[in-house]
Amino acid sequence: MRKLNAAVVGATGIAGQQFLAALDGHPLFEVTAVAASQRSAGKHYLDAIRTPAGAVQWFCRESLPESCIGLRVEDAAAFDSTQVDIVFAALESEAARELEPRYARHVPVISTASAFRMEGDVPILVPGVNPGHIPLIRSMQQRRGWKGFVAPNPNCTAVGLVITLAPLQEAFGIRSVLVTSMQAVSGAGRAPGVVGLDIIDNVVPHISKEEAKVEAETRKVLGTLTDAGIAPAEFPVSATCTRVPVLEGHTECVNVSLRRPARPAEVKEAFVSFGREFTELRHHSSPRRMITVLEDTFRPQPRLDRDNEDGMTTTVGRLRECPVLPDGIKYVLVSHNTRMGAAKGAVLMAEELIRQGYIP
Amino acid sequence: MRKLNAAVVGATGIAGQQFLAALDGHPLFEVTAVAASQRSAGKHYLDAIRTPAGAVQWFCRESLPESCIGLRVEDAAAFDSTQVDIVFAALESEAARELEPRYARHVPVISTASAFRMEGDVPILVPGVNPGHIPLIRSMQQRRGWKGFVAPNPNCTAVGLVITLAPLQEAFGIRSVLVTSMQAVSGAGRAPGVVGLDIIDNVVPHISKEEAKVEAETRKVLGTLTDAGIAPAEFPVSATCTRVPVLEGHTECVNVSLRRPARPAEVKEAFVSFGREFTELRHHSSPRRMITVLEDTFRPQPRLDRDNEDGMTTTVGRLRECPVLPDGIKYVLVSHNTRMGAAKGAVLMAEELIRQGYIP
Amino acid sequence: MRKLNAAVVGATGIAGQQFLAALDGHPLFEVTAVAASQRSAGKHYLDAIRTPAGAVQWFCRESLPESCIGLRVEDAAAFDSTQVDIVFAALESEAARELEPRYARHVPVISTASAFRMEGDVPILVPGVNPGHIPLIRSMQQRRGWKGFVAPNPNCTAVGLVITLAPLQEAFGIRSVLVTSMQAVSGAGRAPGVVGLDIIDNVVPHISKEEAKVEAETRKVLGTLTDAGIAPAEFPVSATCTRVPVLEGHTECVNVSLRRPARPAEVKEAFVSFGREFTELRHHSSPRRMITVLEDTFRPQPRLDRDNEDGMTTTVGRLRECPVLPDGIKYVLVSHNTRMGAAKGAVLMAEELIRQGYIP
Amino acid sequence: MRKLNAAVVGATGIAGQQFLAALDGHPLFEVTAVAASQRSAGKHYLDAIRTPAGAVQWFCRESLPESCIGLRVEDAAAFDSTQVDIVFAALESEAARELEPRYARHVPVISTASAFRMEGDVPILVPGVNPGHIPLIRSMQQRRGWKGFVAPNPNCTAVGLVITLAPLQEAFGIRSVLVTSMQAVSGAGRAPGVVGLDIIDNVVPHISKEEAKVEAETRKVLGTLTDAGIAPAEFPVSATCTRVPVLEGHTECVNVSLRRPARPAEVKEAFVSFGREFTELRHHSSPRRMITVLEDTFRPQPRLDRDNEDGMTTTVGRLRECPVLPDGIKYVLVSHNTRMGAAKGAVLMAEELIRQGYIP
Repeated sequence: MRKLNAAVVGATGIAGQQFLAALDGHPLFEVTAVAASQRSAGKHYLDAIRTPAGAVQWFCRESLPESCIGLRVEDAAAFDSTQVDIVFAALESEAARELEPRYARHVPVISTASAFRMEGDVPILVPGVNPGHIPLIRSMQQRRGWKGFVAPNPNCTAVGLVITLAPLQEAFGIRSVLVTSMQAVSGAGRAPGVVGLDIIDNVVPHISKEEAKVEAETRKVLGTLTDAGIAPAEFPVSATCTRVPVLEGHTECVNVSLRRPARPAEVKEAFVSFGREFTELRHHSSPRRMITVLEDTFRPQPRLDRDNEDGMTTTVGRLRECPVLPDGIKYVLVSHNTRMGAAKGAVLMAEELIRQGYIP
Repeated sequence: MRKLNAAVVGATGIAGQQFLAALDGHPLFEVTAVAASQRSAGKHYLDAIRTPAGAVQWFCRESLPESCIGLRVEDAAAFDSTQVDIVFAALESEAARELEPRYARHVPVISTASAFRMEGDVPILVPGVNPGHIPLIRSMQQRRGWKGFVAPNPNCTAVGLVITLAPLQEAFGIRSVLVTSMQAVSGAGRAPGVVGLDIIDNVVPHISKEEAKVEAETRKVLGTLTDAGIAPAEFPVSATCTRVPVLEGHTECVNVSLRRPARPAEVKEAFVSFGREFTELRHHSSPRRMITVLEDTFRPQPRLDRDNEDGMTTTVGRLRECPVLPDGIKYVLVSHNTRMGAAKGAVLMAEELIRQGYIP
Repeated sequence: MRKLNAAVVGATGIAGQQFLAALDGHPLFEVTAVAASQRSAGKHYLDAIRTPAGAVQWFCRESLPESCIGLRVEDAAAFDSTQVDIVFAALESEAARELEPRYARHVPVISTASAFRMEGDVPILVPGVNPGHIPLIRSMQQRRGWKGFVAPNPNCTAVGLVITLAPLQEAFGIRSVLVTSMQAVSGAGRAPGVVGLDIIDNVVPHISKEEAKVEAETRKVLGTLTDAGIAPAEFPVSATCTRVPVLEGHTECVNVSLRRPARPAEVKEAFVSFGREFTELRHHSSPRRMITVLEDTFRPQPRLDRDNEDGMTTTVGRLRECPVLPDGIKYVLVSHNTRMGAAKGAVLMAEELIRQGYIP
Repeated sequence: MRKLNAAVVGATGIAGQQFLAALDGHPLFEVTAVAASQRSAGKHYLDAIRTPAGAVQWFCRESLPESCIGLRVEDAAAFDSTQVDIVFAALESEAARELEPRYARHVPVISTASAFRMEGDVPILVPGVNPGHIPLIRSMQQRRGWKGFVAPNPNCTAVGLVITLAPLQEAFGIRSVLVTSMQAVSGAGRAPGVVGLDIIDNVVPHISKEEAKVEAETRKVLGTLTDAGIAPAEFPVSATCTRVPVLEGHTECVNVSLRRPARPAEVKEAFVSFGREFTELRHHSSPRRMITVLEDTFRPQPRLDRDNEDGMTTTVGRLRECPVLPDGIKYVLVSHNTRMGAAKGAVLMAEELIRQGYIP
């Protein structure tokens, strides 16, 4: 099978670079176009990410893919999506709202932006978590008259949360969820990102709009597809989102009230066996296990566990009963916010959408 | 009034040094004796806190009190408490279990150790929070045949929690409490404390025994003194305690289910007006307000707010409704773990016990 | 004596705020005007430093001065300096180049900007270090036809360096200087400042233009005023400037080749006795000692020593011989980059200029 | 060829674990024995590195080698080295002084300890840097009557330094060296290591005994083997060693006075071409380039460059002239202190000693 031609839009930012890294050497996709703001347009990619002082601003652990260095950056606002088979979009929300529909008229748009997440005919897709929502894509296409579609992933904090809630919902049902996140600075990107002066020796107890996103998107991802669209899950979610001096990897302390009582051992079993059908598809970007459970009571830690399975598994520990919530359990999770939580998770989703025939 | 002669036991560690700093220039107490482990015994205080390489290990922001420099350190295990009017004890739990009763036979022992906190006839006293528990001291004295007593403060993480729960309990009643803490490294002391290699760019999601202490001590402090001792508060508490790369100041994300509904404005009013009778006593170590409420949605932050009122006020922000708990509210607090949360809070308690005639 | 009316220009940034804090309650100055960029013009000061999300961006340890809260921010570009007696300017270099001369036509301008530092008729003044350069102000006024003048302080890294080099130059002569700095993130300000993602768990071995400034300004400050202007000191300076994950306080490792041999004890004596005539003037913002020498071999440390004497003394330690440089010594210094190294140092300079009759 | 049986002594500490990681899957060595202090003796390795609370204290990025999990830890003090072909020793200096000679009586001991570095008949070997010192091993064996030998690597800070000085010495000659290091906390190990409370938001300007080691070992490594042993290099070295809040990777700011003038481009060429004969041997643990030169003026940075070539290359940047030293140049280097700077560098040395017939 020939590789699909892929464009990465918003290619100079952190999330865009993560797309480029995740697509480097990919068996199904070939990055044939990169686009960014007008400021970068016309430059070779390497020059577009150079500072005036000459520093190359490449933020991924992986090397800058050789194949990208010489690509000429196009203006995202003028980008013609018919020249590719798929667009991976890492745009700011406002730009996404305007540009993603233009691209989607012709080709699938896999997006890390929040712009369309809460639209009625748009599913928020998480690999292995809500395959039942995928068919909503067809309604979107019909309703909007698009050949392509927009498939946003959720907020990075919601990703680890829904991955661990999905097996609980399936096995025991969920009555309610409380989550306190300690989020890494990479989640804020770089322009301006979190200033060192604000975060060293500190915790910032608020991230703009984050809690509302986590609450709403979690319920939508775990909701049910009906004829009228996705009915959000009925359980309430209460989020407190904070920023901590950690580079990568979101830590989340989760309390869940289950619908039927479950011993920690049963919950652990639900975690461990979750998503096996999905991981057995052995998608290129897939972790071997959706959830990795650690017994060490001092784990998971973001620095030690964010890179488990190249950042694509969600690591869970400290599983125990919650003495407050009815049939309550609690646990701590670490999820890599710029791997499974962003671009590479979106690439994994694209791999599954190919398998199911939604792409191209 | 002549000052009371005070001993600081465990005087070389962080908490002991905080006692010395809090007592420096104090109008009611004069530190006339310091004691520590046998290793330090016989040395002048300044030499006792010097490393072999010559570095002076003094950890407080305040200068090392001149008056302490020349004091000869006594062996805590052999310390004769009859030579002082009061002992401020900052011992490890095991040493406290053995030594505090010996001291208490003769004089009051104000303690930061956990050893006696859960004894039936020992109150855990928090200034301004549970004055009703103070009379239990008399039972302790009678039952144990002591002239003095042991008055432990709670675990540092429980301190900020009970200070903010007390007004809620009084005004609205409490059904349940969930708390996730992000604790500073100073809480672990220095030997060995938290190793830099473990905490830089990281969160450690567990602190040994901490959660059980926070849960049990919170309920005891907010319980009711009966003839049979203190009946713990009936509401359950669920704690998740984590360590973050912050030097001082514990941050706590708190969710509370109230017994009767309250709007955030009412809750704020309860916070703001809490403890006025106590603060109006204008004790030497007292904050002007027990609780400081900030409207800025990005506050409280440990680095910016730990030193509010010299670390003696508890700073609260992000007050809002919790969509999960019945009549639920949530907020974030910052409490200075080595000021109000440890030695200086204990000194403030001693000031109140003097006023009430329990000391000397 | 009535207080002088002072304007703080660039009042919303870090350095401007430091000016406001340093001038709060000052016996000689009353802040009667604040100015900033057009974006802030017309707002009350408190509103000008509020983010869209409502957070008050006040960065000093001191409280926001009550007297500033209600001042209406003027447009720096249109600010009429005749309404005040003195301007404290904390502008970006480009804005300083344009605006400072306008203000200086009428009144003295005490500046933290680099714009005029290397002009031939402008001295770079450091309190207590180069009083001999002050008369150059008169030439500047005559040559430029200004009633006022521009008096810039040096780059924050040069401040601690020249303060410690001055006594060496005087007592022993200097042949050459090598310095490696480990600079705090606050030196970069906040827009954008140093991004947390760049500096956590890291060292950045370059700061744009910093090394050239340190080298040139150090030689100028320690130069000699001649009829032709200031002849820079003849010794070469070699600087390597790096950024480290420290909030405040620059650390500098200095190697100096002296003109005549000196034992460490003599060097120490030169440090300790330096600037006594100046500190005995007891200016409001003055430290009691220009240089504080610590014997503890693990000091100075930025976190422990930056706030010595409210950040106005330079703390030196690790004084020892350098086996490489002829008659070489080496030492480590910590200097508070946003106190003596910036606004408060500039205010101290203004106090001295009043005493000498240059202001008003 | 059958693999050599190797013992790792001091196997539970950081450096010992780095040995285990570096030897995992190694084509020439098979770890058949592990030894540690008496406290660990008799336990399975996995149990020996478990805390009382159950946490597995494994500190390497690589997984704990499966083959080590079940090895029974022997008592280092009683370890019989005749059962193996080679010992990799990661002992504290005092233990090394006593035990390494016992092992060396029978087999080669590759060591990270400082105990024997300054002995007259012991070379300090750095792969690719001082092959001319290797024959000294024969004198050691004869003089001491050992079948084996002790081959210590240098202090981790000296490693990157000598690797970059060697090509300068060869191409231009060296008159003198000044170095200021910013060292990572992992260099201090874990018991107690650097306490978080000391290093967060801080720089510690002294590391016990480090400067003397860097100065003396650098001169010895770059010295000349004569009949009377190794004559240290004649140039003086002046080191200032500091600790910064960085996890891994030492940064060093180096100033070198050359014997003959060299333009930066020539120096760069010397760096780039250094060690080609050695790297072309393609030893299992070898980097492809001994030195990697970066043009980006903001590099090298420890977080971004420590892992270049799996931590085995020394990354250099900011190469420029030094205006102070005669024919002076300066540069910044980053060297991975626990890879090339410790165990894995020692393993690479062992690979070369096999090739040259010194092992077994």
